Amino acid sequence: MTVTVGVVGGGQLARMMIPAAEALGLHLAVLAEADHCSARLAATAVGDYRDLDHLLDFAESVDVVTFDHEHVPTELLNELESRGVVIRPGPHALAYAQDKALMRGRLARTSAPLPDWVVASSTAEVEEFLAQHSGEVIAKTPRGGYDGKGVRVIRSVAEVAEWLELGEVLLEEKVEFSRELAQLVARSPSGQMTLFPLVETIQANGVCAEVIAPAPNASDAFQTHTAAVAKTIAAELDVTGVLAVELFQVGDDVVVNELAMRPHNSGHVFTEGALTSQFEQHLRAVVDWPLGDTSLTHPWSVMVNLFGDAGHERITAALETSDRVRVHAYGKEPRPGRKAGHIVVSGEKLEEVRDIARRAAEAGERA
Amino acid sequence: MTVTVGVVGGGQLARMMIPAAEALGLHLAVLAEADHCSARLAATAVGDYRDLDHLLDFAESVDVVTFDHEHVPTELLNELESRGVVIRPGPHALAYAQDKALMRGRLARTSAPLPDWVVASSTAEVEEFLAQHSGEVIAKTPRGGYDGKGVRVIRSVAEVAEWLELGEVLLEEKVEFSRELAQLVARSPSGQMTLFPLVETIQANGVCAEVIAPAPNASDAFQTHTAAVAKTIAAELDVTGVLAVELFQVGDDVVVNELAMRPHNSGHVFTEGALTSQFEQHLRAVVDWPLGDTSLTHPWSVMVNLFGDAGHERITAALETSDRVRVHAYGKEPRPGRKAGHIVVSGEKLEEVRDIARRAAEAGERA
Repeated sequence: MTVTVGVVGGGQLARMMIPAAEALGLHLAVLAEADHCSARLAATAVGDYRDLDHLLDFAESVDVVTFDHEHVPTELLNELESRGVVIRPGPHALAYAQDKALMRGRLARTSAPLPDWVVASSTAEVEEFLAQHSGEVIAKTPRGGYDGKGVRVIRSVAEVAEWLELGEVLLEEKVEFSRELAQLVARSPSGQMTLFPLVETIQANGVCAEVIAPAPNASDAFQTHTAAVAKTIAAELDVTGVLAVELFQVGDDVVVNELAMRPHNSGHVFTEGALTSQFEQHLRAVVDWPLGDTSLTHPWSVMVNLFGDAGHERITAALETSDRVRVHAYGKEPRPGRKAGHIVVSGEKLEEVRDIARRAAEAGERA
Repeated sequence: MTVTVGVVGGGQLARMMIPAAEALGLHLAVLAEADHCSARLAATAVGDYRDLDHLLDFAESVDVVTFDHEHVPTELLNELESRGVVIRPGPHALAYAQDKALMRGRLARTSAPLPDWVVASSTAEVEEFLAQHSGEVIAKTPRGGYDGKGVRVIRSVAEVAEWLELGEVLLEEKVEFSRELAQLVARSPSGQMTLFPLVETIQANGVCAEVIAPAPNASDAFQTHTAAVAKTIAAELDVTGVLAVELFQVGDDVVVNELAMRPHNSGHVFTEGALTSQFEQHLRAVVDWPLGDTSLTHPWSVMVNLFGDAGHERITAALETSDRVRVHAYGKEPRPGRKAGHIVVSGEKLEEVRDIARRAAEAGERA
């Protein structure tokens, strides 16, 4: 009679759901891409998430399906749902996290603040949008991009020609933002919603490198605004589970950059920094159990990603820099630039906490 | 090249080592008693911990052996060690946690404060000890007792006759204590030691029912004293890993009640209540990595055990009482009186925190 949550994808997000599932007494089943995945401890099947039969076999063994990533083709999710599989977030919501052009179109029908954008399918359309925006815009492939992949700053049609040949390209105004933020919210099928505190995210080479919780210098009014934006999107798009809304701050306002409908790198900091982690909150939402309090447990918490490798040498080197360092290794094979783990440090003073976290992340880093 | 920590026993202590092992990137291997054990997710072998071959097979697959319980016969541990198996805590230390008579004898050679005690092997010795202590003493079987089993208050030889027939009986003065406390300490093979904050433990029917961190009304001098007692025992007995020293408070002093050389029920509160959990600290000590900061993360944290069952109904009932409730289910079959899970609540005010934790534990309790 144990409820089984099935996670498609065996990456670090699935891995970090394991402690929450164990604590709650839920059974976690993972459909992994390969035997040696990050979430291998909970892997119950190895299969291809682009194969309907693999997905169906897996779905039969679980009570509800959720995700480690957003790459399962929408048509397969629709097919699963039509056969009675419970999917959270549902394909109708997930589609907006999978396709950035679809997302822009849908958000334009809400009150969410957006950058100027257009979906271009011809060189003329690209040229027109470039001309409207001082000759420099952001181009994105609507599907399949992540961690800076599939995103480009362009100043000419030539720079996006190969993408255009493959299909539509999403063009966005290059927002002159003062910083990046993330507002996470969890929503359950019965409609309960809880917000996480607003965080500041710092990117390096288009990839999240550091997160500060709470976002410094964010007034109550500003936080109320970002909270309202996230809640509006979660409710209007009927999201279940954790929704991460990545935001650009522009003056005292924000515009929505990207959406993720799953636990997100920007929320890793809450495992130590809040009463309820994003992984536990996601599982609680997905099985429609009461959501947890997300109050901060420390004045400041800082997360720093470990790129490349997070093997024993690097982890022990990090632990040696300070006894306040919390590490999370993802159990992955080393690869340059790969997110291999992260560090969280919490405390009273932001500068101190940040210094400790950064020094720990640098320790044992391969040249 | 991943370090593998082998845990003998698949109970809730092994289960709760899983999140720590995942975070640190250690591989956890568990020698379970049965397929459906609490730590089944990490079970790599099913076998009998009283069987040398089973232990040897298991030991060959791991880098270091540690424990979920203290029931592995000393002679088998000695045999493993003689064959080069790394065991932490070592059999020479563990023997004192396995045999209460041996423990009393060893502690008597340290500065640790003890109750009056004697090992009796005849009715005459029992009568003499009873006569010396107003006719009422505590009798314990030296080996195999836990959670109130193998412990009795006796007023006559008759009450301990059956135990005497089986061998020696440990007799202890019935200490008139004001309360019970636990002082946890972790010690690594290289000698690093970190103390956890002193906690108060509240027993019901001889079993730990509630733990308060930190112990209320404990002066700095008193905490320095309990810390010194635990450190002395850890160092003199050459303990590695977590050592839990259960104490009786008598006036402004303490006497040592029991020892456990593993994570302990009294330390569950630190998973939420301290920067480093006892499970992570135990693993870090066992593999001789730097130990973590054990500072409290909240003014007060209270743990309440869930007895009988911790299935979905009870867990959701508990979560519904307050969004601040943290639950830990042990994934065990329901059984009256069995430790099935626990709840932790943290916050600013002890009375409030305790009320929330108790109400959550009572919710959904079977009549």
